[in-house]
Amino acid sequence: MKFSRFAKRFSEHAGIVQLMDDLGNAMTSENDILMLGGGNPAHISGMQQYFRDSLYRLINNPSRFSHVVGDYESPQGNQEFISAVAKQLNQLYGWNLTEKNIALTIGSQSAFFYLFNMFAGEDEQGKHRQIFLPITPEYIGYGDVGLSDNLFYATRPIIEEQDASYFKYRIDFDELKIKADTAAMCVSRPTNPTGNVLTNDEMNGLIQLAEDYAVPLIVDNAYGAPFPNIVFSDISPLWNPNMIYCLSLSKVGLPGTRTGIVIANEEVITLIRNMNAIINLAPANLGAMIAYDLIQSGELVRLSNLLIKNYYRERLQHTLSIVDREMDGINYLLHRPEGAIFLWLWLPDLPISTLELYQRLKERKVLVVPGEYFFPGLEEDDWIHKHQCIRLTYSMQADTVEAGIRIIAEELRNVMN
Amino acid sequence: MKFSRFAKRFSEHAGIVQLMDDLGNAMTSENDILMLGGGNPAHISGMQQYFRDSLYRLINNPSRFSHVVGDYESPQGNQEFISAVAKQLNQLYGWNLTEKNIALTIGSQSAFFYLFNMFAGEDEQGKHRQIFLPITPEYIGYGDVGLSDNLFYATRPIIEEQDASYFKYRIDFDELKIKADTAAMCVSRPTNPTGNVLTNDEMNGLIQLAEDYAVPLIVDNAYGAPFPNIVFSDISPLWNPNMIYCLSLSKVGLPGTRTGIVIANEEVITLIRNMNAIINLAPANLGAMIAYDLIQSGELVRLSNLLIKNYYRERLQHTLSIVDREMDGINYLLHRPEGAIFLWLWLPDLPISTLELYQRLKERKVLVVPGEYFFPGLEEDDWIHKHQCIRLTYSMQADTVEAGIRIIAEELRNVMN
Repeated sequence: MKFSRFAKRFSEHAGIVQLMDDLGNAMTSENDILMLGGGNPAHISGMQQYFRDSLYRLINNPSRFSHVVGDYESPQGNQEFISAVAKQLNQLYGWNLTEKNIALTIGSQSAFFYLFNMFAGEDEQGKHRQIFLPITPEYIGYGDVGLSDNLFYATRPIIEEQDASYFKYRIDFDELKIKADTAAMCVSRPTNPTGNVLTNDEMNGLIQLAEDYAVPLIVDNAYGAPFPNIVFSDISPLWNPNMIYCLSLSKVGLPGTRTGIVIANEEVITLIRNMNAIINLAPANLGAMIAYDLIQSGELVRLSNLLIKNYYRERLQHTLSIVDREMDGINYLLHRPEGAIFLWLWLPDLPISTLELYQRLKERKVLVVPGEYFFPGLEEDDWIHKHQCIRLTYSMQADTVEAGIRIIAEELRNVMN
Repeated sequence: MKFSRFAKRFSEHAGIVQLMDDLGNAMTSENDILMLGGGNPAHISGMQQYFRDSLYRLINNPSRFSHVVGDYESPQGNQEFISAVAKQLNQLYGWNLTEKNIALTIGSQSAFFYLFNMFAGEDEQGKHRQIFLPITPEYIGYGDVGLSDNLFYATRPIIEEQDASYFKYRIDFDELKIKADTAAMCVSRPTNPTGNVLTNDEMNGLIQLAEDYAVPLIVDNAYGAPFPNIVFSDISPLWNPNMIYCLSLSKVGLPGTRTGIVIANEEVITLIRNMNAIINLAPANLGAMIAYDLIQSGELVRLSNLLIKNYYRERLQHTLSIVDREMDGINYLLHRPEGAIFLWLWLPDLPISTLELYQRLKERKVLVVPGEYFFPGLEEDDWIHKHQCIRLTYSMQADTVEAGIRIIAEELRNVMN
């Protein structure tokens, strides 16, 4: 069979394909893979119980159930759910959102496919425009969604070494360049893969820059407030009509339902609605319907703070103690873990690429994600730091994380000697 | 905000956007819209009960439930479900499928977005290639999924007038032209919007043609065998590795879950898997998991024949009697309804466009779909027939269909006088 140029984009090896394949296999396979790769959230039993209760209520309401599974939803997404989200965000942050500012997507990934290609790529005059990532490392999933090559450009961060073995990336505002062909800016906050949380000052700087140059600012809030709120530093969520704020139900514990939530001005929301209609007919309904009661009542925000944030905080503390114990004697630094569910491990003395390290660890049944994938827009940059970091997920069970880190430490000692 | 060329494709008025918007509004609104547009399946109570039972079993299996909602599925789709589908199709049709021949998508629409753009559009040499629709009218949803303009070319059918007020479209094999830039062929069988079911002879003719010219043949089987099997003529499902067979759980009664199933050779399935990973991370899980037990046990095929097919056959007979009664004295023909859930009404004397008729009926709270939208690839063709047909859905409640057809007949008398 002869394929199009578009198809060729998907036949090449993409980081996100390998990641999702490893993740899917590890989640379903019988063999004991120690899964420290991927971004699968934990199965927090309290949350799962709430979801089961919610679904149970749905089953016992036959007419509502028939609507949820048996009807195509409108392409913007379920209107009741959208209203509940608008009300919740307005109450918490005073944002003045209406139902016209919100659309649902097939998870956040689909939202980024829509958004990046909506702004960047070829414009109507045939000029190529780009998404600007003001700080990298950035999320692996961005790298391949472009319908044209060269969709991103990016800036290196300032590396601030902190006490003990911690460091923190900061936006290097002096180096940021908004160009004539800059289509939009994007940051994830908390940042996947680093666990960084951009400060309010950094965000305000970006918001100002976006307004000054009249480019939209996209914020990937998959781990942020008000749900799942896996944020351990003190920050405020910010939105204005020049910003696009992407939320998700995945990290609340519902990744299997694929439910993304986009907050934006009406023009963007209308485009997303149309993209949903043309590409998918409608978003999937069940995630929004499982979460509807919990958002309507405000419970999801309460549970995010009570169950989800505390769960990950405990897992983080435990994981840090394991790293501290097992990695003793290895020259490593950790990005200050301020949010999300990852540790970003910097190995300045690593004599092999992190892709090679990934392969060696995979042979020992430990999955991590090689850091090379997290620098979209810096592909041409020969910065050595790109090849010295790996991402570890600490969301899995304590014994999995512990056994995994022990093997990682062993393997690091092997390759560093 | 300044948008890309890609975005402009979605800001223009698309037939499918209007259709999905009307459908979504009608399905959720309080006002009494008579919904004879859209393709929403009926809520067949026996089927809904099976789905609720299945979901109830899932809720009562906490570890399975946690996997279904709480894990990212592998991008190819749930492996157990895929195995069950392969086993079922092999048993029924002797197809020799393995798990490598099947991938899940976010509904059939997403599969067609993938498939059409995978084959057609710009090739690696920069040449534009097209999808060939050997018979039109064809499904409205195809028209807008192209990432480039001019994605389709098509052939008019032969119109065979039959007894009473029936006619049937037949493929005009003498007029079919496979060109150097033909990327793939596609037919829906049963056909949306006409209710036509291509005969085995016609299908064999297409299969042979596809092989002779080495182009893939895509078959949209959303209404076909083995589920939902809304087919009233005697046909055989056919597949070979040069064909791509698209099934869906929507018309079984699960459109809200967005579950498409693609049967193809390994090369195509790998591309779909990668597209799922990059565009959506993974397919939505709940539809497959609701249907899994029913496919594994063979029940879904039994229920399709027993409940679904018979339900629609009864609805069809009733609707035909209503049309016969209400349209008395109007010059109309109906495409022979051999499958799917639509009547395709041909009004040779209609003095206005069907778009105008649609607007007039919408003002009277009756929704139909104007026929103009169902001729992708024949946009430039000045064939008058394109402007003389409307699509009616007979899946809704009997009184809705009856009241709707009465108003349509009234309005037709108004405009024809």
